[in-house]
This record gives sequence, structure tokens and C-alpha cells, in this order.
Amino acid sequence: MPRITLAQQVADSVERQIHEGVLKVGDRLPSLREYMRLHGHSKNTVITAYELLASKGLVEARHGQGFFVRAAPVNTAEPDEALPYARAMDTIWMMRQQFVREPGQAPLGEGFPPVSWLQDMRLDRFTKQVMRSGAGSLFRYGNRLGNPALRQSLVRKLASYAISTTPRQIVTTHGANHALDLIIRRFVAPGDSVLVENPGYYPLFGKLQLQGARMLSVPRLPDGPDMVALEALLRTERPRLFFIQSIGHNPTGSDISPAKAHQLLQLAERHDLILVEDDALADFKPSSSLKVSALDQLRRSLYIGSFSKSVSAALRVGYIAGSKEMIDELADLKMLLHTSSSELCERTVDVILSEGHFLRHLTRLQDRVREATLHGLNVLDELGVEVFCRPEQSLYLWARFPGVWDSSLFTQEVQAQGLTLAPGAIFKTDQKAPTPWTRLNVAYVGEPLFAQCIRSYGALAGSTVSQLSGAI
Amino acid sequence: MPRITLAQQVADSVERQIHEGVLKVGDRLPSLREYMRLHGHSKNTVITAYELLASKGLVEARHGQGFFVRAAPVNTAEPDEALPYARAMDTIWMMRQQFVREPGQAPLGEGFPPVSWLQDMRLDRFTKQVMRSGAGSLFRYGNRLGNPALRQSLVRKLASYAISTTPRQIVTTHGANHALDLIIRRFVAPGDSVLVENPGYYPLFGKLQLQGARMLSVPRLPDGPDMVALEALLRTERPRLFFIQSIGHNPTGSDISPAKAHQLLQLAERHDLILVEDDALADFKPSSSLKVSALDQLRRSLYIGSFSKSVSAALRVGYIAGSKEMIDELADLKMLLHTSSSELCERTVDVILSEGHFLRHLTRLQDRVREATLHGLNVLDELGVEVFCRPEQSLYLWARFPGVWDSSLFTQEVQAQGLTLAPGAIFKTDQKAPTPWTRLNVAYVGEPLFAQCIRSYGALAGSTVSQLSGAI
Repeated sequence: MPRITLAQQVADSVERQIHEGVLKVGDRLPSLREYMRLHGHSKNTVITAYELLASKGLVEARHGQGFFVRAAPVNTAEPDEALPYARAMDTIWMMRQQFVREPGQAPLGEGFPPVSWLQDMRLDRFTKQVMRSGAGSLFRYGNRLGNPALRQSLVRKLASYAISTTPRQIVTTHGANHALDLIIRRFVAPGDSVLVENPGYYPLFGKLQLQGARMLSVPRLPDGPDMVALEALLRTERPRLFFIQSIGHNPTGSDISPAKAHQLLQLAERHDLILVEDDALADFKPSSSLKVSALDQLRRSLYIGSFSKSVSAALRVGYIAGSKEMIDELADLKMLLHTSSSELCERTVDVILSEGHFLRHLTRLQDRVREATLHGLNVLDELGVEVFCRPEQSLYLWARFPGVWDSSLFTQEVQAQGLTLAPGAIFKTDQKAPTPWTRLNVAYVGEPLFAQCIRSYGALAGSTVSQLSGAI
Repeated sequence: MPRITLAQQVADSVERQIHEGVLKVGDRLPSLREYMRLHGHSKNTVITAYELLASKGLVEARHGQGFFVRAAPVNTAEPDEALPYARAMDTIWMMRQQFVREPGQAPLGEGFPPVSWLQDMRLDRFTKQVMRSGAGSLFRYGNRLGNPALRQSLVRKLASYAISTTPRQIVTTHGANHALDLIIRRFVAPGDSVLVENPGYYPLFGKLQLQGARMLSVPRLPDGPDMVALEALLRTERPRLFFIQSIGHNPTGSDISPAKAHQLLQLAERHDLILVEDDALADFKPSSSLKVSALDQLRRSLYIGSFSKSVSAALRVGYIAGSKEMIDELADLKMLLHTSSSELCERTVDVILSEGHFLRHLTRLQDRVREATLHGLNVLDELGVEVFCRPEQSLYLWARFPGVWDSSLFTQEVQAQGLTLAPGAIFKTDQKAPTPWTRLNVAYVGEPLFAQCIRSYGALAGSTVSQLSGAI
């Protein structure tokens, strides 16, 4: 059963009201603003819902006046061809926001480190070496699995995480999202049950929705997934895959405990589960941080790495490591769908990894993350902000502001004041339920505007809550 | 109804023979070699078929002895999860071959121009300019639609083809295959009917098979698609999309006639059909060559361009142009699945397009293609080889050798002698039926080994035919 988006739920609820006569022909639907305030949905969700209703002929938009219930619902015989795409609409809208950066906004919700943390890696510095490694072959597809020299470098990188591989066990991708897409298309069929962490990485949710997968959510606790919930789902639903971020979990910044990692693999063994470990933020953590794939040595795990957050998102280089058989199949699929990845970008990354620059860059980057995390936690403590966990170094902190009961509403309030947040609801598998949590980028927690907004909101939010409660 | 692969057909046929008692428990199946020679299938098809049978428990492999019919067929309750992937296995195998280049082979079957035709574009020459256009933003995702400067350059390029667009009507991709993938995932649902040219671009077939589309094939004639067949399919099957290559068609090298292009658009209008014009070889043809999208101005066509064949396949830069609405949806899907394309590679292509180098490069490239085409046609005439059409300039020629009735068999014969061919069967929607046609890369038709093989094969092939006919 495909998962229904929030917008679809809103549309269904309105449609029910039309059929039941609560809303009559000619009635005006609540304005976007009213609906948002009443139910705490994003503007986009409500717009999408209303557009879904309009596309079914149930309501019509009148310019400048809003949406109205139509005379006679038109029965469209056409099947809803846009369905899989519509399912992922909420995620698409969220991802769009990542491409927009308002000048002057404090980007607390951003998923990236500041450019100043990366700029010491001057990408042009490496061009000569890239070209020296055979300009002729820069006109062809590279190897089916990806550039061989890069895969050799990745074997060394993985060895530093205590994961033993060979170059045949690695396939390169256009970044971690391309890696997730390939894994989903190879191993998830429409209707399949798949485990995800909740809260978790929302672009993953969108891809699973597009594929028509049934997402089963496992609560994420400060020391890893909720094992009781996981075991219950394994027993009743027999899912085949579990997408997990062991360390530096997005959005909570939490790390899995060694005991849970061990227990997780035992469960995976018993229930024939494949673990997909997305470790796109690995370079922000010490290489000694425990990864599930290091315990398991890629027997029933697939490991995803990326250089988008620690080198450059403009290169689009990531990779998957796993058993030779699975990697072979994923390489076939990559070739069938996209022929090959970029030899130019992969050689650039390989040169970067092979030079001393990269290790120096990582040391500096990790010093910065550690310092920002420590400072960020201090700032949050002073503001009376509750944190989900207190990592030593993490790009993200998961926080709960005093007086805020729905961080989506709070995000809307402070947007106008110049503060951009990533409200917790977008990281939840059920994006409808209000949550007080917010993901913070540690690099920006020290911005004065942030403290100012948190301090001044408490009383205001309190009154909004009672006001809204009265209205419902 | 999902299309059944050749391997599946072979497996079905063997399974029938087991059930009907033609093959008994303990019987040895024909060896791969025998089966290939008897039926003209590729080795991979037969292997895949036998593995399908083995996975159903009908046969078993005995090391070094071959496959044998098993005692009792095991009834596996599991659904065949690998099916969509298995459907595309034939294409995957063919595409794999494009990544392997045996040293010393004459690569008549190759899809690319020789490196010497491209090497005047020194990719490293442009690095400084690429970096000058804002090194800071090279650490982030670019624009959701792709690099804005490149899209502006593409507007000018399309204008030179008499296609009017705006930058909002273009989304960049990781090459033409990524473009096809996005279009298929957005506009083709499992079970949908889709029109393709036959023969046509086989990586397209594989992607459609993976999506579970029903491929309807329209014969490709020397002046474009067979309009009678097309109209019949439009009437009975109501397909929504038609994937077409107007000019420099792969594999035949043919161009659509103006009259057919016009008629095609009239039919598209009448039957509400979207035309997907894949023009990945545009740079090998004069810019005045008539494209369907130029007649229609992207109202019901989507235009795909690429720089993989004329600049470098290592960059992975292509694009789709179309109506603002469709491009917007495709950009959303690209973002959802792969976040963004490579800002570094796109800027590199933009700098290349904006400098005088590119036009000089194209002039030289087209001179070479024209010369090679003329020379190639002369060589083929002298050898008594029939050609499908006689383009003035085309990277490919579609040819039929004297005495060859099945070019797949012929390809196997000459492989050992150092000649690599692209047999016609792989470009057919029904990859099972033997075809005498072969796709030739004009750059290599002058190789002495080629003429030698063609001359010497006639008599031999004749005797093989009668021998095989006797065996069946």
C-alpha cells in the first residue's frame, strides 16, 4: 500500500466534508492562512491539497478570492498518472528550499557546513594532476564501477574505518542521493516494506515514496534505533531493508552505541535484513567512530559515502561499498540508467584524497566542528533549550525551544525576522504531526539573531497555543 | 503487461520441454555453445536463461559438465523480486561491452568518435575561467534547473537549430541517458504503452523494460518512422510517448524527411502524443538539419541534447528542453533523486561553449565525419555491402554484408580475428529475431581488417547457414 502524503490527507479530509455536505456548492474553503494556522500545515501542503481537489474538479480557484466548492464534481475517467510523483511532493518542496538562500538570512536550517570551512580545498589546485593521469581517456566512459584509482583510494579510506574491502566491492555514484536511488531501485519493489529511522533523512523518504515502498518507522533514540520497536516490526512486517545512519545521524546528531550496533547486526542476521548505512557525514566525525559496516564487514550491509559535504557538492561524487555480488548488480543498474559517472570529477576527488591536503583539510574541518559543537551546546544551555543528545562533534544538533510546541509554526514566525530553521516535522515519516524539535546547524548557533528570536518567542508562543487551542 | 526478455523466452521454452518430457530428469541441456549456434542467441542470453531455470530449481549446474534437468522441480513460494532487473539483463550485458575495449581490436561497433577527433578540445585549458566564475559557489549545489550561464548558452545553441526557448525551459542532466531516465520515471508508469523506433537506441529499451513499460515498435525507414504502422498503433494502443531520433538516427544514420516530420506532429496533435526527441548526436550534423522540435517549438516535444559524444563523455553533461511546466516537473524529479548535477562540469561546458574553441572544434569534427562518411560509403560499395541509406554525414552507417544472414553469428566469427561489430539484433525491440544488419562506426570502416573479413566471409557463411539449417 503506497503511503499517502500529508497533502493527500488534507485533500481527502476536505473531499469527505464536501461529500458529507459540510461544505456545500459555492462555499469558500478556508484560506491558506486560516488552514495553516488551524492545522499547523505548511503553506505548500495546503496549496498542494487544494490543487489536488481542483484537479479532481471538486473545487475551483477564483482569482484573488480563494477556493470554492464547484457545482458538480467532474468524474475524470483518466487514471491518476501523476500519483507516484504526487506522493513525493512534500519532499520535493522541502528539497527546493535547500537551493534557495535568502541573502542576510541566518541559515540555521542549512544542511551544509559554511563555505569558509571548505574553501581551503582549492579545487583548481589539482587540475594539472588530474590531466596528467591520462587526458586521452577523459573523452570516454570510465570503468563501469567507477575510476579505478579512486576506488583504490576509497579502499584505504574504508580501511581507516576498519572496513576491509577490495576495489571490486565499490561502485562510484553521483553523490549519496544517487547511491540511495540505485539501492532503492535495485532492492525495493512497489509495495515492499522498508525500515527507516524516525526522525531521519527526508530525501530518502521522498525516494521511497516515489518507488511506492511502505515505510516502517523505527524511532531514533540518542544511542541508536529503538530496538524493541525494530524487533516488533521485523517479526510482523518482514521488511528486507533498513536504512540507517550509525553516526552523526541526520537530523539528531546522535551516534549508535557499540552494544546496539552489535544487537542490530544480530537481528539483521536472524531476520535476513540488509542494512543500508548512509554515512555521508563521515568526514565530520573521528575515523574511529564505530560504524555498523565495520562490525559486519559488508556481509549484510551496504555502506554509502560522499564527498558532497566535506569537499564539494559541485563535484557530485559518492560511492557504495558492499559485497562483490551486490556491487556488481548496482554497477549494472547505474550503467543502464546513467551510463557512467563523471571521470573528470572522480579523478579530481582521487587526486585530492591522494595528496596530503585532504588529511590537513579534515583535521581543520573536525577542529571547527568540535569547537562549534561545544560552543553551540553552551549557547543552547544558556537559552534553556533542551537538546536530544550532546555529541562531542556533529554538524547537527536536535533541539527543543522553550515555549515552542510546534516548530513548524515557530519556523514560519521567525522566517520574517531573518532566521531560517529546519523544523522537525520534515524529518518525520508522519510529516503531519506537530513536533517541538528543530535541527540546528552548529556553525550558526552562535549567531546573535538566533538567541534573540529564542528569547523573545517564549511568551508569544504560549499565547498562540492557548489561542489556537480555543479555536479548534 | 511487462515485456518478456529473450532470456526469459529461452527459459520458458526449455521449461516447456521439461514439462512435456522432451527433456527428462538427468538429461544434459545443450551446452551454451551449442545453444548459441543453434538459435543465434548471445552467450549471455543463454547463461541468463539457464540461471533462471536453475533459480527455479528445474535444472542444476555441475561443475565443468554443464546444466542438467533436476530430479524434482522445487516449488519456490517467494515472488521473483529480481524480475524488473532481469527484464533489462540483455541491455545491461550489451552496455557492459561498451566499457570493455580490447587492445588491438578494430572497434567498428563502437558508439563513439575516435579520441583523435576530440582531443583538440583540451579540457584543462578552461580551468582558470571555470574557477574565475566564482570558486565559492563551487562548494554548493547549483541551481535546481542547472547552471544558469550554461542554460543561457544552451538557449543560443537551440536558437541555432531554430528552436526558441528560455533558460526556464531547460534542465541539465548527467548526460542523455540520465535525461531519458528522468523522462521515463516522470511520464511512464508500469504497464504503459510507449512507442519506440525499431531499430533504435537499445539503452532506451533497457530503461523502458526496467520501468515495466510496454514497448510498441515503429519500423524506422530511411526517411523516418513508418507512418502507416505508427498511425495504426496510435489508433489501437493509445500510447502517450514516442521516443524518436530525427536526425543521425542511431543505429541507421538516417534523417527524417521534412514531410514526415510535419506529418508526425500532426499525428501527435491528433492523438495527444508527447514526442521525445533524443538528439545526442546533433553536433555531428549541420545545425540546419531539421529537428522535429524546431517545427513544434517544444509544445508537445521534449528535446534531449548531450556533450558526451562531441566534447567528452567524462563530463556527464546533457540537458532536456521543453515546456516550462514539463521542465519544472523534471527538475523536481532530478532534485528528488540525485539532488543536483555537477556544477563543476556544467561550468566547464559553459566556458567551452562560450569560447571560440567550440565552433572551430565542431567545424573540424564535422569535416571529419563528412570525409569518413564519404570514404566509408565508397569502401562499402566496393565490397558489395548494401547500405540502408546514404547520409552525407553520420557517425553511423547501417549495413548488410554479402552472404551474412545473421549478423550476430557473423560478429562472433570475426571477433576472434580482431574485428568488433555491433550486430543489428541488439538495436531491435525483438532481440531474438536474426537480422542481417550491422551498425558501423564510419571512423573505422577504412580499417583494412574490416574489408578483409567481409571479403573472406561470404563463402564460409553460406556453408554455415546450410549446416545450421540441417541441424534445426
